[in-house]
Amino acid sequence: MGATATSAASDDRLLPVDAGTRAIARDLYETVADLPIVSPHSHVPASLLRQDRAFEDPTELLISSDHYVTRLLHANGVDYDDLRPTDGSAAGRRAWRLLAEHWHEFAGTASGYWLERTFERVFGIGEDLAAGNADRIYEAIEERLGETAFRPRALFHTFRIDVLATTDDPLDDLADHAALRDDPTFTGRVLPTFRPDRYLDPESPTFPADVARLHEATGEPATFDGYLAALAARRAHFIANGAVSADHGIADLRIVDLGTDTAARLYDRARSGSLSAEDAHAFRGHMLLEMGRMSARDGLVMTIHPGVRRNHNTATFERHGADTGHDIPIATHFTDEIRPLLDEVGLVDGMHLVLFSVDETVYSREIAPLAGFYPSVYIGAPWWFLDAPDAGMRFRSAVTETAGFYRHSGFIDDTRAFLSIPARHDMSRRLDAAFLARLVAEGRVRPAAAERIIHDLTDTMPRKVFKL
Amino acid sequence: MGATATSAASDDRLLPVDAGTRAIARDLYETVADLPIVSPHSHVPASLLRQDRAFEDPTELLISSDHYVTRLLHANGVDYDDLRPTDGSAAGRRAWRLLAEHWHEFAGTASGYWLERTFERVFGIGEDLAAGNADRIYEAIEERLGETAFRPRALFHTFRIDVLATTDDPLDDLADHAALRDDPTFTGRVLPTFRPDRYLDPESPTFPADVARLHEATGEPATFDGYLAALAARRAHFIANGAVSADHGIADLRIVDLGTDTAARLYDRARSGSLSAEDAHAFRGHMLLEMGRMSARDGLVMTIHPGVRRNHNTATFERHGADTGHDIPIATHFTDEIRPLLDEVGLVDGMHLVLFSVDETVYSREIAPLAGFYPSVYIGAPWWFLDAPDAGMRFRSAVTETAGFYRHSGFIDDTRAFLSIPARHDMSRRLDAAFLARLVAEGRVRPAAAERIIHDLTDTMPRKVFKL
Amino acid sequence: MGATATSAASDDRLLPVDAGTRAIARDLYETVADLPIVSPHSHVPASLLRQDRAFEDPTELLISSDHYVTRLLHANGVDYDDLRPTDGSAAGRRAWRLLAEHWHEFAGTASGYWLERTFERVFGIGEDLAAGNADRIYEAIEERLGETAFRPRALFHTFRIDVLATTDDPLDDLADHAALRDDPTFTGRVLPTFRPDRYLDPESPTFPADVARLHEATGEPATFDGYLAALAARRAHFIANGAVSADHGIADLRIVDLGTDTAARLYDRARSGSLSAEDAHAFRGHMLLEMGRMSARDGLVMTIHPGVRRNHNTATFERHGADTGHDIPIATHFTDEIRPLLDEVGLVDGMHLVLFSVDETVYSREIAPLAGFYPSVYIGAPWWFLDAPDAGMRFRSAVTETAGFYRHSGFIDDTRAFLSIPARHDMSRRLDAAFLARLVAEGRVRPAAAERIIHDLTDTMPRKVFKL
Repeated sequence: MGATATSAASDDRLLPVDAGTRAIARDLYETVADLPIVSPHSHVPASLLRQDRAFEDPTELLISSDHYVTRLLHANGVDYDDLRPTDGSAAGRRAWRLLAEHWHEFAGTASGYWLERTFERVFGIGEDLAAGNADRIYEAIEERLGETAFRPRALFHTFRIDVLATTDDPLDDLADHAALRDDPTFTGRVLPTFRPDRYLDPESPTFPADVARLHEATGEPATFDGYLAALAARRAHFIANGAVSADHGIADLRIVDLGTDTAARLYDRARSGSLSAEDAHAFRGHMLLEMGRMSARDGLVMTIHPGVRRNHNTATFERHGADTGHDIPIATHFTDEIRPLLDEVGLVDGMHLVLFSVDETVYSREIAPLAGFYPSVYIGAPWWFLDAPDAGMRFRSAVTETAGFYRHSGFIDDTRAFLSIPARHDMSRRLDAAFLARLVAEGRVRPAAAERIIHDLTDTMPRKVFKL
Repeated sequence: MGATATSAASDDRLLPVDAGTRAIARDLYETVADLPIVSPHSHVPASLLRQDRAFEDPTELLISSDHYVTRLLHANGVDYDDLRPTDGSAAGRRAWRLLAEHWHEFAGTASGYWLERTFERVFGIGEDLAAGNADRIYEAIEERLGETAFRPRALFHTFRIDVLATTDDPLDDLADHAALRDDPTFTGRVLPTFRPDRYLDPESPTFPADVARLHEATGEPATFDGYLAALAARRAHFIANGAVSADHGIADLRIVDLGTDTAARLYDRARSGSLSAEDAHAFRGHMLLEMGRMSARDGLVMTIHPGVRRNHNTATFERHGADTGHDIPIATHFTDEIRPLLDEVGLVDGMHLVLFSVDETVYSREIAPLAGFYPSVYIGAPWWFLDAPDAGMRFRSAVTETAGFYRHSGFIDDTRAFLSIPARHDMSRRLDAAFLARLVAEGRVRPAAAERIIHDLTDTMPRKVFKL
Repeated sequence: MGATATSAASDDRLLPVDAGTRAIARDLYETVADLPIVSPHSHVPASLLRQDRAFEDPTELLISSDHYVTRLLHANGVDYDDLRPTDGSAAGRRAWRLLAEHWHEFAGTASGYWLERTFERVFGIGEDLAAGNADRIYEAIEERLGETAFRPRALFHTFRIDVLATTDDPLDDLADHAALRDDPTFTGRVLPTFRPDRYLDPESPTFPADVARLHEATGEPATFDGYLAALAARRAHFIANGAVSADHGIADLRIVDLGTDTAARLYDRARSGSLSAEDAHAFRGHMLLEMGRMSARDGLVMTIHPGVRRNHNTATFERHGADTGHDIPIATHFTDEIRPLLDEVGLVDGMHLVLFSVDETVYSREIAPLAGFYPSVYIGAPWWFLDAPDAGMRFRSAVTETAGFYRHSGFIDDTRAFLSIPARHDMSRRLDAAFLARLVAEGRVRPAAAERIIHDLTDTMPRKVFKL
């Protein structure tokens, strides 16, 4: 049995429990279950598809590289060191058995849902993972990974991915993207995304070195004007290589217009590493405004992911580095914090700004009201910890009554886990179907309208919002 | 067919999808579906009813005057200028067609729900608005508006409105209200509401001029004592004309007792426009305390609507003025912020304080706990963006377990859109029925109790809370 | 009919309204309905069980001593003085009639639910309380209270309580606990809990006197080192008497490491009552860190209950004292505020930290993400105003997708109302069944897994988290 031999539409997962509403939902879901995947924001590296090597190790593929999975194992007492297959297959199998022993602790989680669906839909494994079958399932997956049909490009095709946007460093030469574009044997679209955080944050320990490289790579003078020109040049390079968006992560969102003179002064001091925390905050806020100005000019969709305190635990950061499962959300606010940006470019024709949040409170309070007025503002799909069935339903309920369905970004998977992409997009389609079915059953949306809406949410909106 | 010929009770809109629960909800709803409307807080002008002129223009009536509708059209790319029938019928029809073209973008929104219900229940139009029938529907509505049965007073009667409170400037002579009261041909109650925001906010650009007019109109000396006396005098004028409440909108709620000397000093400086932002904030906080003191004395119910940043977009404000769809909520807090007021008047017999919020987080965290202790505090109905079916259910769920059903304000429509009043009150009754039906089905509320509660929520509570 | 003659499993209260899901929920619930109660955090005094006197007065037992009940009566206009049976039976009956008259105001509340279930399951009274039957029900309860089967120890047995943790002052000699432990006729476990708030808060008016007693009782010198040693000694005394946890209530959580020198300086000034509000805040934050350090060493589970503004109304506090129903929640944050503690002890083997909140917004935003990484962090059950059916379902929905079921603390009743204990634990089991049943019906959790999970939530997790 090949990958995804089981039709996505063959079960009622995530659909409403009420029979009548479930029937409506199933009909809606079936109209979009097999539509191509549009993925405008992921963390899959382009090199994966360029090289197209076989995945070898189930543990590396499904556990070690997915910090959603490793963090929950860690919380339940597993040491990170035991989850890395350092000595080849034996360690990989041990780590896999750890997952099996802890599998019940994943029940009800988004990670557990992705994994189970990946087992089932990608590998055709319907059994519940357990200590007793861990080795057998490991071997079954390992065997499949050796098949040509399970190489990245084959899966890209099997998954019906139409567009996949990666996330890339501004100084990346984008050679992988170019190679894929020029390869006549690969017809998918793999687009880079401009992600300049480290070049905009004076508190990043590598900031001085990073901006030095930026100036050097672009030949722009080491002034604030040169810095802006260098960033604009790299954006142009990304656009030339197919980029449609620029992504911005920032812990404490607070956009300010410092004016060029002050910003330039802070820039000079930032390069020598002598900025106070408050000035660094202000500089980041100003640079987000500059990024917005550039987006208004060059057309890159601006996406903002605020409100996460990175690397919460010092010891873990020192031992295992960043992105190891201890980034923790904080309360986030948009209304006042983003006002200077919207005042300046919020009404500019063609400006697109997608706002994400891991703080649910802003959905009904700030993001939906903003998106219900500004033509430039789109409501980002539920992000990170909120990218899960119940959270997704709360999101839909929180934003739709104020902003309707046509101010949504469409689904964004934001994932490093390539194999989970179909399960994630499928989940979103099921949730849209479930949500719309209830509105139909409650007499709030007409059946024909619901059918149009679910199609637009799946296909039309992400293409429109991300200019695809 | 006359207005509202379709009985409100003829469909199951908004009732629970589960058949058994829906049956309970329908029974509950039917006991209150046709009760008179008590509307203790609206933005309908009294002049509308005094003059009783025929509405003429469907666009002006249903689009241009409703910034919930225009803001969502704006978000979806429509220019505000195209929504104003400046050159009469032709422009009105063009704007109407714009609404029809964008109608699918209203699916699932509260505004879409009001409009659809208004088409159906007021005008007997059950068709889905679309480009193809836009002109026909426009004409059908236009024709109806020419009929006597569609004049404001006739609709007031058809809608079964018992009491309607308007929102008025403290210096309003209330002649419209007096005329209605003295008119033997009109039996409805139309009451003014004292809304003094601009006279209490030193940061309002018209503050010096407004308070100058206040002193002049009342003959009170231009001192802080005179200012308080002038406000009290205008409240007395409102009470003499039937007012039952004073309404207060404030962005950042923070009540403080500055003491008379400091308050007086700030007042003098405020009149010359020389108050710092911080002092202005403090002065507003003090004046809200003074308003509470006056309410404790004169019995006007005090309603507070905090937490909205007005006029978020400078260009839109400059081009189109205030109340044009870009007021955006901010995080709101009550516990500490309102404490000085509750410490002073929270236990005063007859003091009624209704707390509204557009920040849902305070429902379970602050408002319900406050209303579950203070006899003076009532929980304001879901306001503004939260006045919608799902948000209404979240509200009921958030406050009821702490404070029960008898600390609610009852429904408040808060609307400028006169024709939407029955749809709004009907929605609230349906949501009460749906919520209570679930509690009955879950064995938490006895059927007979539910029947009493829905009657009290619809009729008893708003009359009690607003002293009607 | 004896106490709890009605089986807990005889009805479908709180189970989902959808018939299919309800059937799944009922099956799940029945597997745990009769399991023993593990209550790791309550406010029942140990003396109640040591003395084992008959309860005499229904009003004192069910009204006066339960500030959830008195606060809602107060909100609905009843004077606290009328709820205290000061002149014996006549006043008690009058207060009981007041409850009966106001009984409809409890519909839908958690308090109403506890009381109704207590009437039904403990006293076998299925009638709805009303003015007409108030006296009869009062007498029926009064009569029962005279029976041996209704004495505290007999009820402890009937309720199937296995472990009950009380909440105690650090200087308590724990003689009641020792007596119960040494009494061969009483086989239940009644454990003390170390609750040192007043000894850690320089703004407590009794702080200087309290710490003076602490030094005196332990013989430790009146220095900061002596203060820490004295606290450690009392913790050791608690551990020797069976304590498993230390509980910390704090309004504004913000843990800081002041360093020993600064902390010692502030301690000296705190003892003379000369600390600024800011320094007092810092000192409390530092002492919570010290408590965490001690927990990491002595193994007491650390529980934190932040975010409540105590004694909101001055007049009520002056007239009736603390814990009289006007403690009101405030917005709470954990991510940054608790970081110094987690950085230091968050990965220590055996460290257990249970985080509670009355601010729902932190469930998905902060607590679940923290518990999904730190092995030491457990998600506290819904607390206080949130300990109610709908809030409990929101809680489960908010935390499970991020952290799974195995990072929960298990249910904590936190109650002073001894008779409500079975109803509270029963509610939690029903909610777990309802929540799991939906996940099963949605294809997200396998039926066998759900059965294991509900057993673990009821029994395994509280024993593991609280080291019982």
